[in-house]
Formats: sequence, structure tokens, C-alpha cells
Amino acid sequence: MIENRDVRVPCDALTDFVYRVFCALDVPEADARVAAEATVAADLRGVFSHGVAHLRRYLKGMQDGIILPRPEVRVIVETPVSATIDGGSGLGHPVAFHAMQRAIQKARDYGAGFVAVRKSNHYGIAAYYAMLALEHDCIGMAMTNGSAVVLPTFGRTPMLGTNPIAVAVPAGRERPYVLDMATSTVALGKVEIAERLEQLIPAGWATDETGHITQDPRVVVRNYRDRGGGGLLPLGGEGELYGGHKGYGLALWVDVFSALLSGAASANLTYPRRADGKSLFPGIGHFFGAWRLDAFRPPAEFKAAMDDTLQRLRTSPKASGQSRIYIHGEKAFEADERHRREGVPVNGRVYTDLAAIARELGVRFGL
Amino acid sequence: MIENRDVRVPCDALTDFVYRVFCALDVPEADARVAAEATVAADLRGVFSHGVAHLRRYLKGMQDGIILPRPEVRVIVETPVSATIDGGSGLGHPVAFHAMQRAIQKARDYGAGFVAVRKSNHYGIAAYYAMLALEHDCIGMAMTNGSAVVLPTFGRTPMLGTNPIAVAVPAGRERPYVLDMATSTVALGKVEIAERLEQLIPAGWATDETGHITQDPRVVVRNYRDRGGGGLLPLGGEGELYGGHKGYGLALWVDVFSALLSGAASANLTYPRRADGKSLFPGIGHFFGAWRLDAFRPPAEFKAAMDDTLQRLRTSPKASGQSRIYIHGEKAFEADERHRREGVPVNGRVYTDLAAIARELGVRFGL
Repeated sequence: MIENRDVRVPCDALTDFVYRVFCALDVPEADARVAAEATVAADLRGVFSHGVAHLRRYLKGMQDGIILPRPEVRVIVETPVSATIDGGSGLGHPVAFHAMQRAIQKARDYGAGFVAVRKSNHYGIAAYYAMLALEHDCIGMAMTNGSAVVLPTFGRTPMLGTNPIAVAVPAGRERPYVLDMATSTVALGKVEIAERLEQLIPAGWATDETGHITQDPRVVVRNYRDRGGGGLLPLGGEGELYGGHKGYGLALWVDVFSALLSGAASANLTYPRRADGKSLFPGIGHFFGAWRLDAFRPPAEFKAAMDDTLQRLRTSPKASGQSRIYIHGEKAFEADERHRREGVPVNGRVYTDLAAIARELGVRFGL
Repeated sequence: MIENRDVRVPCDALTDFVYRVFCALDVPEADARVAAEATVAADLRGVFSHGVAHLRRYLKGMQDGIILPRPEVRVIVETPVSATIDGGSGLGHPVAFHAMQRAIQKARDYGAGFVAVRKSNHYGIAAYYAMLALEHDCIGMAMTNGSAVVLPTFGRTPMLGTNPIAVAVPAGRERPYVLDMATSTVALGKVEIAERLEQLIPAGWATDETGHITQDPRVVVRNYRDRGGGGLLPLGGEGELYGGHKGYGLALWVDVFSALLSGAASANLTYPRRADGKSLFPGIGHFFGAWRLDAFRPPAEFKAAMDDTLQRLRTSPKASGQSRIYIHGEKAFEADERHRREGVPVNGRVYTDLAAIARELGVRFGL
């Protein structure tokens, strides 16, 4: 029965469970704590695809030797305002957390700070890291590349990841502005959901193997699995008529900052496999930035201007039939408050799988 | 006869003419030189809306007292890696040029540099400034806000400008990657062209006064002129189905960095008018950034990775019916080379108006 409905789990219990799973996988306690909090932060904010639903993939990555529990993390380059860190093929969350903290410290010391990370893995939601800047009166930015699933404009082979950009900006009385957007029209997860529900997808999300729009999610998912060609469309859709070349350009920007500045691999390379069939994928790259508000303007003045701008946006006249204009991050903040109060909704299938992971690793489940 | 066809003008002659126009308007020679070169750079790159076609508006801005020929430019805040500059209501190009040079110098000295500008005006194309970083082995970024013409998602009143983002990244043998994109689906100019040609616009560019899609360009242009409501849609279109909230989020990001960090005004404020009817519009804001490549990775290594990434994108399989995948900036570089060789195409109507400006100001035309 549980398969088809969400289970509500208290936030702390869920975080503790994920922490114990990572510990059981030989991840050091401090790293396991960061990875657990970053993972559950996604569920809290309503980005369920990047939360505990992803735990199985982290587990599999470790079992396959692609993610190392105790990576050797090294600083490759460092200047007062920049650094490049080699994540040593560990979990993405801990190295991302420390890289963002380092960017913030540089911003506190010098006005701005930027850290590129290579040889890393999936780090959950970009917003989590960008938002670490907020309490320091800094603007935060986080980007990451990912495996190739998005087409360049006029192409038919996936060459770029969904490459998200997150920017978090402090306000005063208003909640912060927290943009966190894939640079594709939608994430692959939305196509997979439509496939499960046997629904058509909107014309403009994805293409078939010829590089032209399809509304059949089965075609998209099958081609992705079999490397048959076609893929997700960049923000702005097919061709240039609605600005698809802009979404493609944003995805490439993120690839340049995350993968090329850091020395990670661009998403569209193919990698050799070892004799045992395991991929030698060298990992993905991230980019983090922080700007201190008072490097430009007194923070109180800036925050008052933010409040004013956000209020005027929210209270501006609505399109007919609409009752609300949102600020970026607003829905996520409301979800976070609700989920902390009422428990984090865990999809029934995911819940069952978490229980299976607990059994496999000999970790107490107790959710 | 000349009205309906382009006139080819040698690049140097066109630049010299614009320079002499600005000088005749009492702009200091050095500023006039920068403004002329930045203006013609737009025509060279094929962005005709931001080139000499804009000269009449600069002239009118000066005649109306909104743009001052000899502004008092002041540095308001400065740290090793940041600055905020008050443009004193001068032309946008000179203050933008100097702000970007300052950001580059900071990047050369410290690894990264950022300069926010307030009380400025239209500066032409953002790419011009971002590209100044290229010869210094830096990545360049330029943003600007502009007058409100874009709707927030679910809104029906323009609250944001087309707020472009430009990013320029050096490569090795390949041409640089130069993204320069409005964060709206299209610029207003495209709607105005459709109106003149009596053509429908694609469903997804703009809305009527209810906030829903219209294909009638006359409705959009009339509402913009009369402040009747409706406007351009953010990149991603109407609502959230195709990611319109992402384009809206990008536009807001640019507004925050350009207008709120600098202390310029957000685009959606209304301004009092003086007794003589002239607007007290306090000007727009810009944001410039530069990152030194070797603050992250040896430049030769980075450029080789750029070459490899760009080549693989360009040579990746094409969608059926397509023969080419472009890198951002590629079309503009080709236009620039062609226009330097064959002359800059100046629209017949614009050419006639340039001649009129020459007469009005007593400047020799001679094009």
C-alpha cells in the first residue's frame, strides 16, 4: 500500500538516517553529516529528485568505485580570491560545502571569492551552497556541470548537462531571492514522470533522435538509456525562434566555469572503461562564488532596496486568472517550513528503497 | 530610393562620424572616441539596433538633459577587488569602458575584479565590454538593466528590462565564446519590425494587456507606448511550463547586480517629472566582472580544453535539416570580419537620419 503514497518523516530522523548510511559506507563522520544535511535540504525545499531519492545512486557510485568514501582532497591553485580544488572523486556534497565556505571566507577577507572544483560527483541542489553565503551578508553563486543530456541548438546528440545556476541574495524583511535553475527547459526527471504516468510531454521539452521535438516521453527515456540520440532542449526550446540558443549558451557558460576552469572533464567526452567494465569517468566540476555586499554598497541600504524591489514585483498586477507572482526561492522556503513542521514527504517507492538500503548495509531504519 | 536599402559605409568613416557627433554635443574627445567605437562595434557585430540606429536617442537624451555630456564620474566604494562608480548621468559607453578596465586591472592584480555602475545610460552591446577582458587572459562579464518592458511570470505589468548578460571566454585556436543575451525571449525591436512588416509574431514572444500571449505586434507596441500593460515574455515564455520563471529569474538577477548593488534604480520604479516636463529618471545600472584564468588553471591548459570543447560541439551530429551548430559569438565574429571588409550596412532610414543629425549639429556628414 505504501508504494503509491508519500510517507511523512521527521526532518531530523531522515537526516540522521542518511548520515548513518554514509557512515556505514565508510564516509568520515563530518563528511557524512554534511552530505546528509545537504541531501535532506533538497527534500525540505521540495526538490525531491535531488534528495533521499538520490541515495541509491550515491550508494551505487560507491559500490562501483566511482565515488570514494575517503577521497584525497587537494588544493591545486590558490590566490587571495580564488582556488581550484581536486575533490579526489569523493561525494560532491562535502567538497562543495568546503569550497563554498572557502569562497565565502575569501569574500569576507577581500570582497569576493571563487572556488572551482574538479573530480567531484553529484552534490544535490546548487541552492544549498549558494545560500550558505546569506548569513555572511554575501551574495552566493553555485554552478555544476553534469552528464550530457541536453542538445546544443541545431544538434541531435546530447553534449551538455542540465547545468544548473544558483544565485542567493540577502534581503531585509523579505525572504532572500534564491534562483536555482537548470539551464534546460526541464530536468530529465519530469520526462521520466510523464513516461510513468503514460502522458505526453509538452512540445518543447525534448527531441527524438532526429533532433526535432517529440511529445512521446518513452522515446526520450529510451534514447537516453541507449544513447540513441536526441535529448532535452535548452531553455528557450528548439532552434532560435524562442531563444533556445540562449539556454544552450547558459549551459555552455556553466560547463566552462565548472568543468574547464577547474580542469574537470566536459560532459560530452566519452570515457574508457576498465577491464572489469567500470567507467573511468573522471567526475564532474563545480564553481562557487561569493560577493560581499559592502564591497559595493552599505548592506542595510542594499537590503532595503531588495525589499522594495521584491515587494513591488510581488504586488504588481497579475495576469488574468493568476493570483500570485512569486520571487525565486519563495515556494521552496514555504515548502521547507511546511516540511519541518509536518514532516518530509518521502515517496512510497523511495521509502521502500531506503528500507532496502538499510537492510543491505545493516543500518537501523526506524523511520 | 535610399530609404529601403542598406548603405555600405566604411567602418572607420562611420566611427569618425559618430565621434564628431558626440564632440559636437560637447562630449570630451576621449569619451567621444570610446562612445563612437562602442557604438559602431554593435553594427560591426550585426546588432544593428544597438549601433548607429541608436544615435538619435543619445542625441535626444542629451537635448532633454537626461544624458550629460560632461558628467561628474565618482568612485563611491572601492576595495582591492570591487568598486562602485557613479556615472553622473553621462553616456553609458565611457563609464562602462572605464569600469570594465578597472575590473580587469583588479583581476590582473588580485585574480578577480567587479565594478558596479549607477546613474548611467544605455551603453550599446554588453559583449563589447565583456570582450575587453579577452586580451588579458581573463574571462569577462557585463550586465545592464534597462527600462521596464518584460513581465514577471504570472504578471501583466512590465517590471524588468530585457536585462542582458554577456560573458566572454578566451580560447586558443578557436574564436572566443561570447555569450550576449537578453534575458527576455526576444528584444522589443523584433516586435517592432514585425509591426512594420505587418506580420504576426510567434506565440510566446509577448502578451496583451491581460498578461496572456498575443501574436499581434500592434497590440504590444501600442501598449508599450501607452503603458497599457502587457509586454515581452521572459526567456522560457508564458507561465512555468517551458521555464518562463527561469528567464524572469535571470532578469531579476541582472537587476539585482546592476541596479541594486550599484544603487541605481530598479527599472520598475516610476519617476517624477520636473516642472518643464522632463523626467527625473535617475539612470540605469551596470555590473562588470573579470576573472583571471590563471587564478584557477594554467591558461594554456584552459585554452586547449576550450578548443576541444568548442570543436566537439561544432562537429557534433546535426539535427535533420540543419548543417551547422554555432558557438556563441561566432555569427558576430563573422559579421564583424565581413563588415570591416565590405563596409558596415546602414539601414536606409537610419542613414537618412544620420544625415539629418549632421545637418542639425553642423557636423560634416561625408559618408
